[in-house]
Amino acid sequence: MDNINNIEVLGLIAATLTTYAFLPQVYKTWKTKDVSAFSLPTFSLFFIGILFWLVYGIYMESLSMILANSITLLSSFALLVLIFKYRKR
Amino acid sequence: MDNINNIEVLGLIAATLTTYAFLPQVYKTWKTKDVSAFSLPTFSLFFIGILFWLVYGIYMESLSMILANSITLLSSFALLVLIFKYRKR
Repeated sequence: MDNINNIEVLGLIAATLTTYAFLPQVYKTWKTKDVSAFSLPTFSLFFIGILFWLVYGIYMESLSMILANSITLLSSFALLVLIFKYRKR
Repeated sequence: MDNINNIEVLGLIAATLTTYAFLPQVYKTWKTKDVSAFSLPTFSLFFIGILFWLVYGIYMESLSMILANSITLLSSFALLVLIFKYRKR
């Protein structure tokens, strides 16, 4: 493996961890419908931020960033939908 | 501005959004002590993942990734401490 590939392994571990991380939260929130503790600004800003990271990753030609941010975009969108659906007005 | 700088602006917007995003959550959780809705695996994996993203950012020589992940590492650590402190055993 050349040096770029070694670095990319680090990125792929990072990508796997932060991408997989949100799945238990989506599952738990989907099951419990408990969204009272969540900050809506946090998950809104996070979603928009991940969109920018994805575009940045595409320009940086970083496979790790493209993969991770595509999936995290989906799971953070799912979480955002659940928060909007179950929050008390 | 050259092309690298234009790309880095995208990264800095992304970094600002995802970094700032967690602050309202840390504040809300600190105030309400309500952590019942949070998934502990999510925030544990996320914290470790951010550590890897930080190391990856250092190797990629990406200022955006280094700045963002340093601060997100701190705020996700704060959130993890709050979750451990206030969760029901």
